[in-house]
Amino acid sequence: MGRYKLTIEYKGRNFIGWQKQDDNPNSIQEIIEKAILGLTGEAVDLVGSGRTDAGVNALAQIAHFDLATSKCAFKMRGGLNHHLREGNIAILDCAEVDAAFHSRFHAKMRHYQYQIISRHPHLTLHRDLAWQIPYSLDIEEMVKASGYLLGTHNFSSFRDSQCQSKSAIKTIEKITIFKEGEFIKMNFSAKSFLHHQVRNMVGTLVLVGGGKIKPEDMKTILESHDRQKSGPNAPASGLYFLGVDY
Amino acid sequence: MGRYKLTIEYKGRNFIGWQKQDDNPNSIQEIIEKAILGLTGEAVDLVGSGRTDAGVNALAQIAHFDLATSKCAFKMRGGLNHHLREGNIAILDCAEVDAAFHSRFHAKMRHYQYQIISRHPHLTLHRDLAWQIPYSLDIEEMVKASGYLLGTHNFSSFRDSQCQSKSAIKTIEKITIFKEGEFIKMNFSAKSFLHHQVRNMVGTLVLVGGGKIKPEDMKTILESHDRQKSGPNAPASGLYFLGVDY
Repeated sequence: MGRYKLTIEYKGRNFIGWQKQDDNPNSIQEIIEKAILGLTGEAVDLVGSGRTDAGVNALAQIAHFDLATSKCAFKMRGGLNHHLREGNIAILDCAEVDAAFHSRFHAKMRHYQYQIISRHPHLTLHRDLAWQIPYSLDIEEMVKASGYLLGTHNFSSFRDSQCQSKSAIKTIEKITIFKEGEFIKMNFSAKSFLHHQVRNMVGTLVLVGGGKIKPEDMKTILESHDRQKSGPNAPASGLYFLGVDY
Repeated sequence: MGRYKLTIEYKGRNFIGWQKQDDNPNSIQEIIEKAILGLTGEAVDLVGSGRTDAGVNALAQIAHFDLATSKCAFKMRGGLNHHLREGNIAILDCAEVDAAFHSRFHAKMRHYQYQIISRHPHLTLHRDLAWQIPYSLDIEEMVKASGYLLGTHNFSSFRDSQCQSKSAIKTIEKITIFKEGEFIKMNFSAKSFLHHQVRNMVGTLVLVGGGKIKPEDMKTILESHDRQKSGPNAPASGLYFLGVDY
């Protein structure tokens, strides 16, 4: 008997998202569960630290599962990657962990990154890896606007109508927005997020960056608790699950 | 009558390379020529600064063509990108240039970059965008080895058997090798290169980085003028045409 923690990278395009679904086998969860079955002969429940939507990428998604028989974690990483090698999922790390570890319940902080390329021509090399915005963005104005999102608020204005969370109250611990080569990157850290919260916040920050609304409007939008007041849901392809703190 | 210079980005995967071929319409040159025809009604010869092989990427390939009637270069960029938007080719810039400008003959220096990710798991996000090496590389040793390649030499040891160049004598002006996040990047600058020269040099530098040969062996390999002595031809997916100086 052993519990194993996986660190997983994936390119979200062509997957229906993290979560297993009865009518479509193309979820990241199900594909990895099949790899584990193929490698060990055991049908496991793979528990992710959080769901990601179709098209969302991950640099370090975390998940755990149990095996009836103890295995070498390092060999398991190689074995799983052998099963996964033709697709866009890779196991970056596999470690045996305490039986009490839980990838979702023990997460203290989750980190997401959103990547934008602001230029007129469409993307080629980074198609499916960033959101192309065909006008320039004022990063300083976006940083100002992001300040209103920090701390504990009712985030109903940035919540998808399908969101199953009981409460819309969340606490954003940190937002950083910076240029890196051709990219504008935006990091968001919180214990947890509402469904589409990061992408809705990004869509609204881009309205600020493009001069369509002012940084101070972010406060009004946040306090309205009205999804109709905020910006568009930014495309899934620009979003990266960055990692989890335990 | 006007001559136009294009700056072109492409992801090489799925193309047969830059050069037009009678038996396959899927060259970058032919696809852009068709976009120009679609936009302007004129069948042109698009002259690239150099050929790139199937799978090789470009951040800034340069090409020129002539139109019988003068057009607004800025509008032409947008129009060409409209034609090209579903594929992995984008026109980053279009400028009207002097009728004497020649993208190939006037090139003073060409710059290539090779991108490596050294890690055991296969690539997902950067599949087709880098060469994955499943062991660690000693960059300092690679820098030492690269020193032997600088200057004017007979590069027969790094020349593809299909190479049509009359002489194997080339002058490498600059090589820089550096870490950038998960990537090891290697920049090469020369007025011109032999066919597969950069990829063969990279394949040999990786032998050095992996400890299979010593930096000093690069000198022996170079002086042998024997392609059998050098390393493997590094995959096309890691190579980027970076730009041209005129």
